[in-house]
This record gives sequence, structure tokens and C-alpha cells, in this order.
Amino acid sequence: MNNSLITLGHGSGGILSHKLISDLILPIIAKGNAEQNDAALLEFHSKKLAFTTDGYVVDPPFFPGGSIGSMAVHGTVNDLAMMGARPCWLSCALIMEEGLETQLLEKVLADMRTAADEASVQIVTGDTKVVPRGKADRIFITTSGIGVVEHNFNIHGGAARPGDSIILSGSIGDHGMAVMAAREGLPLDGVKSDSAPLWSLVAEMLDEAGEALHILRDPTRGGVATTLKELALQSGVLFTIDESALIIKPQVRGFCDLLGFDPLYVANEGKLLACVAEEKAEKLLLRMRKHPLGRQASIIGKVEDGEPGRVRMRTTVGGMRLVEMLAGEQLPRIC
Amino acid sequence: MNNSLITLGHGSGGILSHKLISDLILPIIAKGNAEQNDAALLEFHSKKLAFTTDGYVVDPPFFPGGSIGSMAVHGTVNDLAMMGARPCWLSCALIMEEGLETQLLEKVLADMRTAADEASVQIVTGDTKVVPRGKADRIFITTSGIGVVEHNFNIHGGAARPGDSIILSGSIGDHGMAVMAAREGLPLDGVKSDSAPLWSLVAEMLDEAGEALHILRDPTRGGVATTLKELALQSGVLFTIDESALIIKPQVRGFCDLLGFDPLYVANEGKLLACVAEEKAEKLLLRMRKHPLGRQASIIGKVEDGEPGRVRMRTTVGGMRLVEMLAGEQLPRIC
Repeated sequence: MNNSLITLGHGSGGILSHKLISDLILPIIAKGNAEQNDAALLEFHSKKLAFTTDGYVVDPPFFPGGSIGSMAVHGTVNDLAMMGARPCWLSCALIMEEGLETQLLEKVLADMRTAADEASVQIVTGDTKVVPRGKADRIFITTSGIGVVEHNFNIHGGAARPGDSIILSGSIGDHGMAVMAAREGLPLDGVKSDSAPLWSLVAEMLDEAGEALHILRDPTRGGVATTLKELALQSGVLFTIDESALIIKPQVRGFCDLLGFDPLYVANEGKLLACVAEEKAEKLLLRMRKHPLGRQASIIGKVEDGEPGRVRMRTTVGGMRLVEMLAGEQLPRIC
Repeated sequence: MNNSLITLGHGSGGILSHKLISDLILPIIAKGNAEQNDAALLEFHSKKLAFTTDGYVVDPPFFPGGSIGSMAVHGTVNDLAMMGARPCWLSCALIMEEGLETQLLEKVLADMRTAADEASVQIVTGDTKVVPRGKADRIFITTSGIGVVEHNFNIHGGAARPGDSIILSGSIGDHGMAVMAAREGLPLDGVKSDSAPLWSLVAEMLDEAGEALHILRDPTRGGVATTLKELALQSGVLFTIDESALIIKPQVRGFCDLLGFDPLYVANEGKLLACVAEEKAEKLLLRMRKHPLGRQASIIGKVEDGEPGRVRMRTTVGGMRLVEMLAGEQLPRIC
């Protein structure tokens, strides 16, 4: 990648992000042998901890249904939950632009605090940097999180097996479209970010399905499409999903049509995808639907023994469409 | 702080940073009851872990003796070491500006990798964000770290006791002046950043002094003066230090004089201050001097039973000067 430049697409969560991480970052930082999951698993006195980090640069900092503060807690808590880990401790590093209103900072921090309380995590350490005006955009937050793995199941992106059912916990595209509407100053009745902490839902799922639960992953940047493609590649299996099983709110769909976005590629912040052994899928679904964040959970497809890494979608009109990772960047600074 | 704005001084590590953290951030995030140490201590199955985070925004990203990459490892490793914790795992979150040269990114990551190897820590998880041109300045890095506390000593900023000796591990002002020289494009013969991982030195100190070691703190942003004032306040004691015991390289002193900086307030990235029971001080010093990072260690002062939170310095001309925290900001983006 000599003499090339970083583009917005490298932060999209799509194919350019994957290339950057796989071809440049990991070979240097991890000598290439790193599993690409939402968090790292650490062994400590024969106990397992999960450790993760995420930077938040969402623009604007406040949007219907959340803010950079609540997202900075939810996103990191969810990365831990996707490893089947109970989120416990968070760190918070602020990079602020000179001239930021302290009132904005106070609101962001209050949102972090509320979100942390709701998710039963403690923010235990932090840092504050200020850069001169024009060298950052208001506020960036990086949170890291530590979670405790209290089971012996082996949940990771490479664990899907042919026969597994693919479950999605609810509607798609809400977060991305809510941020987009706020950014453009458009009224978008009834659309708000789905940003939410998923651990309590995951705890129910672990309890119900146990080791039959093979994968958990939240479809954030790059959307459901990119996440499915990642997982199919990591597991070396074929995914087939049904377009008719996807729930897209009419307002979200309308806004996507208007702006030319495909909701399959729009970020979510309070949804999860799961791969679970077929015999446990129906019971798991019933259990998920009792939880406020899983009420619209449904089986959207199946893991099959076929071309490794391929994702195909049976469309509502009856055809088959190949699903690829997000190319380029459709919505910069969505998280 | 209604209707006020964040200034560069709020990121200085000096008095404005302290006010921001104590009066605004901690009351919201931690309901005010947080100890202000370099890392948080976590209890996990009756073992102790240390957890810390720091954002790095240094300008320019490369300077004599280091880079934003090596600093992002050293700084976080040192925050763990200052709690007496052995640094084990790091996370790395990158926020990059669109248009960043990938060659620069590669060099920064290579420096992180080298620094991590030297400090025997693993970078186990990360994140990558890209913001549009003009919304950040090239590259910001936030690292978080987890360390393991393998002893039962109670080392923290509030632990200084009257009678303790105050030890400083070497010369001061090198990092700040090296960055400043690089930023201004000035040649500064022989001055380079002292950025270094301090754990191996701390391990020797713990072994030598054990529970007689009361405080460890690295005098980064705000310099030795601000750090001493912080510690005197946290411990509720009087510190008296000798100006003649401070080691300032002639080139650093000359450059400070030229620019009007007081080296007592200039950042260091590979030095530590320690408070240790007097009877152990000399032996500890001898042990420190055998370590490459402690060769110039010396006793710079004494903890006394006097006005709580006061720091005074016996000057080379024989007077007494009060030492306060850094006011405002003398060197923005030094770390």
C-alpha cells in the first residue's frame, strides 16, 4: 500500500476496512495471526476475560434515540456481549476540540453515565486531551471494555456450522438513518437510533441455547450484509438468507430509497445476528421475543455446506442475489 | 461551568485539567467518588488488575527519540507500572484523517509493535475510524491497558507519609523539548524524548523496597511540578524539594530559557517520581542506578508534616519558592 492514502472507505467497516486491517494493520501489530472478533479473549488464572476498544466519532453528536455518549457505552458493551462476556468495566478517553461548549460535554457525559448504569457497567478510568480549534471535530470518545466470560462455550465468528439457523434480533437500518436525518436536518417521523446495550438479551440466549449458540455479532458499520459476509468468510461456509424475513420500518425504507441507500448496508447499534444449531433455534427465538430488545427476532436464513464465504439472498421477487461487503463508504461518521 | 468553552488549558495536565476532571467529569461519570490515580484497580476472583486509558494526539507524530506510536505504548504501559502492575495487554484505537499517508500509518504501527515487544505487552484488540479531511489532524491513537498486580502493597497517590524520601529517576524536560524542537523545525543537538517503558525499573523497585514504596507516578503533562503538587494534595502532606537535585541537560535548559519555559513544567515520558520510607531510600537508589532507566536517580526532597498540599522548593540561590500546578497551557499536544 506504498504511497497510497487513507480514504473514508477505510473507516466504513466494509471491504476497504477489512483490507486495511488484514493487509496492513494486523501483519504489523499482530504478525498476522489474530482472530478478527469483536473482542480479544484473555486467559487470567484459568478464568477468561474479554477486552475490546472502539472509537466514536459520530456526526452530529446528538441524534434521535441517542448520542455519542450513549453509543460509546452501548457499542463497547455490545462488543463484549458478542463474545458471550458479561460487560463489567469501561474506560473513557476524550479528545476534544478547543472551543467545545462545556454544556455539550456535560450532556454527553450524562448520557454515558445513564447508559453505563442501564448496562450495569462501571466507568472506572479515563483521559482528557484537547487539540487546537480545527484539529478535531468537537468531541471524539474512545471507550475500552473488560468483560467476564462465565461459561465454556466457544462463541466466535468462525464457529458457524452447516445446518445452523441464522437469527436477526429485529429491524435494520434504524441507527444509520436516524443519524443521517439528524445530520441533514431532515424530519424523520418515528425513526430513531436503535442504540441499546445487548448483554441482558445475550444472557438469556446463553441460558437458553448454551453451546448450541455458535456465533453472536452485532451488525454495526457496514450493516447486516457486511457482517454476514464477514462471518461466512470466517466460518468458511455458505449463508442463504431470505429478504422477506428482514424487517425494515417503512419510514427507514422510504428514507433509504430517497437517498439511494441499501438498508442491508446501513449501521445498526442495538441488533445482533446469531448462528445457532437448528434444533435449538425455535426455542431460542421464543425466549428472545420475551426480551424487549428481541421482540421482533426472526430466523432470516440458514448456514449451508457450499462455496465458503458466499452469502446469497433469496429476494422477495424470487431471485437469488449475491451479498458482498460494503464497497467504499456510504455514510461516513455513523458511529 | 455553564456556557463556558473548553480551552487548550483543559488538556494541559495542569490546574485547568484538574478542575475539569474534578468539577465536571467525575461528578457525572463517577458520582465524584473516584481516586485520581494513573489506573483503576479492579478486583477479579480475589486477584487485582489495573486498567487504564490514554489518548495520544502529539504533534508532530515523529520526533527525536520516538513517535506517537511508541508513546502510545510507553505512556499506557507506564500508567499501569505506576500502580505497581505488570503491563500485559493493550488495545489500540486509531482515529485517522482522510488523506493520511499509509506509509505514515505503517511507520507508526511499526513503532507500536517494537515498543510493545520491548515492554513485553501484547496488543490484542483494536479499532479503526476515519474522519473527513480537516476533521482530525493526521492520526490520534487511544490505547488502553490491563496489568496484573502481583503484590499486596498499597501504592497510590495518597500514600505519602511524613519522613518519606522523594526520588526522581533522572533528568527532566527532555520529552517536551524534543517535541517542541521537532514541531518548530529547530535543530536541537543531543536532545531527544526520554519516552521509555518503566515497568522493568518498577519491578526492581518493588523487589527492593516492597511495602516501603508508597507512591509511584510518572511526571508527564504538567511536568514534575504539577505531579508533585497533585501528590502532595492527594496525600495531604508538605513536600520540600531541592532545586539543586534536579538534573536538566544543558541543551534542554538552554532551549527552555530561549522559549521561556520552566523545565519543572515540561512533560517527561520515561521518568518516575517515587515516595519511599526514608530507611529504604538509599538502598532503593543504589538498585535503581543499576537499571538503564534509573542511572541518574536521586533523592530530590522530603515529605514533611506541614501544610497539606503545599510543595516548596529550596532554590539554588538559597530561597524557598512555592511550586504550583501548571496554569494555562505552555505546550499543547505534547502527548
